[in-house]
Amino acid sequence: MTNLPFAARADQLVGSIIDSSTSLLAQQSHDIVKFAMGSPADDAVPAPILADIARSALGPGAADAYGYGATEGDPPLRDALLATLEGTSDETTADRLTITAGGMQGLDLACKLFVDPGDLVVVEGPTYTNGSATALSYGATLAEVPVDDDGMVVDELHNIAERAGRTPTVIYTVPTFQNPSGSTMSLERRHALLALAREWGSVVIDDDPYGMLRFEGDDVPTLRELGDGDPLVFPVRTFSKIIAPGLRVGWVDTAPELQQPIINAKQAMDTCTNLPAQRLVASFLADGHLADHLATQRTQYRKRKHAMQDALQEHLGDIARWTDPEGGFFLWVTFNNGIDTQKLFETALAEGVAYIPGPAFSPEGHFSDALRLCFATTDTDRTWEGVKRLRQAIDKVAL
Amino acid sequence: MTNLPFAARADQLVGSIIDSSTSLLAQQSHDIVKFAMGSPADDAVPAPILADIARSALGPGAADAYGYGATEGDPPLRDALLATLEGTSDETTADRLTITAGGMQGLDLACKLFVDPGDLVVVEGPTYTNGSATALSYGATLAEVPVDDDGMVVDELHNIAERAGRTPTVIYTVPTFQNPSGSTMSLERRHALLALAREWGSVVIDDDPYGMLRFEGDDVPTLRELGDGDPLVFPVRTFSKIIAPGLRVGWVDTAPELQQPIINAKQAMDTCTNLPAQRLVASFLADGHLADHLATQRTQYRKRKHAMQDALQEHLGDIARWTDPEGGFFLWVTFNNGIDTQKLFETALAEGVAYIPGPAFSPEGHFSDALRLCFATTDTDRTWEGVKRLRQAIDKVAL
Repeated sequence: MTNLPFAARADQLVGSIIDSSTSLLAQQSHDIVKFAMGSPADDAVPAPILADIARSALGPGAADAYGYGATEGDPPLRDALLATLEGTSDETTADRLTITAGGMQGLDLACKLFVDPGDLVVVEGPTYTNGSATALSYGATLAEVPVDDDGMVVDELHNIAERAGRTPTVIYTVPTFQNPSGSTMSLERRHALLALAREWGSVVIDDDPYGMLRFEGDDVPTLRELGDGDPLVFPVRTFSKIIAPGLRVGWVDTAPELQQPIINAKQAMDTCTNLPAQRLVASFLADGHLADHLATQRTQYRKRKHAMQDALQEHLGDIARWTDPEGGFFLWVTFNNGIDTQKLFETALAEGVAYIPGPAFSPEGHFSDALRLCFATTDTDRTWEGVKRLRQAIDKVAL
Repeated sequence: MTNLPFAARADQLVGSIIDSSTSLLAQQSHDIVKFAMGSPADDAVPAPILADIARSALGPGAADAYGYGATEGDPPLRDALLATLEGTSDETTADRLTITAGGMQGLDLACKLFVDPGDLVVVEGPTYTNGSATALSYGATLAEVPVDDDGMVVDELHNIAERAGRTPTVIYTVPTFQNPSGSTMSLERRHALLALAREWGSVVIDDDPYGMLRFEGDDVPTLRELGDGDPLVFPVRTFSKIIAPGLRVGWVDTAPELQQPIINAKQAMDTCTNLPAQRLVASFLADGHLADHLATQRTQYRKRKHAMQDALQEHLGDIARWTDPEGGFFLWVTFNNGIDTQKLFETALAEGVAYIPGPAFSPEGHFSDALRLCFATTDTDRTWEGVKRLRQAIDKVAL
């Protein structure tokens, strides 16, 4: 590498295996069952409705849809979103709302505001890679707190703080249908996490992209609702999983005193969120499409999860266990036969199935015995085929 | 403010006066001539063509236009852009190209890669506020280098380095039709800047949003071309001024060895640039609309600049001088009658004209005797009216 004046943090800019496996996938010429990306299925994207909206919202007379928008978000989208959230666990007010370029920019904003080089940031183990990558890009020191079937093991935070000799500046969680494990933090643990954050003065990044995709079980109030406006709770939300990821539209819902610093920070990131997509989302919400769309998706994802679990039972029942998410996109599979999921990856691709190896979700490199499967994108027949291929790959490697 | 664990840089997150004056403008109920924003006129946005493209590119069958895109940019846009740039001063290759969320994200990426807290970043005085704000958001220490009719006074960089006791990590310039002054860096100074950057090992952020909008005079090669692939030159480009700002699509054109770090950094910012807008721009370029569109805009902007200069001569000839840009959007007006352009602002609004006061473009708070006018957005009759109102406001304040 040329002798460039890289910032100290440049070493910490990590690419995700997710991306490399996507590039790898794009290069494959043969048929692959793709359990890898955390993306809604193409048929789950309401393209016909969006196309219909585009004809007017982005029509020949809609020059203003292509201008600069307000940094805090386009008023029609802000209004439609506030109305959509009314009565939900994420109900909020205009003085807390900033529209972002997807959930990812919400995480970037939180880290920009709170993470100094060397600050301790606790992430879940396993965690959402791009979330931990954002903290690293501001020079954070990461520590992993375990996740079990009730979500983050909050009690372990004490041990982490003790080992680190300090309390965390930020605790990053995906509390509901977690990426990648699929597990949901229990109500008791949510309360415990908030109590501890208050005791320590730690910011809790409440990254909840999947909460509206519950297809089984009972709702648990969001950290946003339980936090009751506490400035320490930094809720990050997105339309990526519930409408379409390519739009890059999401929101943060923060204490009013944070709105101006967030606007200032966002102006220095991208000036404003792209306006055509904001207009599409605004009409999608205002025209009342979201409820029907979510109902269809939930039914679909429920069916697909059960198909995947049935296929796993049939083909991997003897060598693995897996989580039982009540919503969202992901299953987490853990093997008991010593298989290394990173080493398995190439063989699996050759057999025609793609997944994300466990260590991609662990800054500390754990979980080589595990992998993430996305059940949301693939129809049930293909899912059965993909899981069968996964077993074939394992048998080949084990030979 | 609540006792939150703000990062050290949080104090340095500055909002731009541009934004507050825009909010202020939105609140005005009376007719205002708006010379404030650096935005193409509504009638300069090719909305009918984009609407036409949207019907197919974002049509009912285009679900893939709403999915995640590749972090480095959507292949059709990358291809169309490479073809568009062929034979220009910005001609480049695929291994140097990353699509960004407008030019602003290009600046964010450059600072993310190179600016450590306390690093010296030289900006032009006056400079583009959001550019200097981005450097500040990574904890930079700023210094201003003067700009005259030949652009940045490169010789002054030596004095700045001497005063600072160190050479700059980054030198940030808008070399062509500079924002806000409108002046263009001469060829001689471009060579001198590159030589000095090489001597010092400083990164030159070459932010050139207006270069394709030359309506008079002779082309000067871009720093990108003169740098001939030098990794120290970091070119930032955007479609905001030449197609439409609300799309939030731009690109950076960097040494191939920087592409992976840039992709990693961008994944932790917004995953990918919004795909629907990338598809619109890709078709706009591939269908060959850009050349005609630019030709129309150049003719228009030339006419509007001359109208503004004529109006300034008529109404302000006795108390001010102004720059003579050969392209772009902006004129810089300097008063010789002791007027304070920040104090004048409210009166000007009341008289029905908006501009940006000089100090908004200076981290050190200079230029209270100056202001920026955007000639691009307003038709010639309105421009005459606006300049007349500006004089009325000055006369009121001077009473």
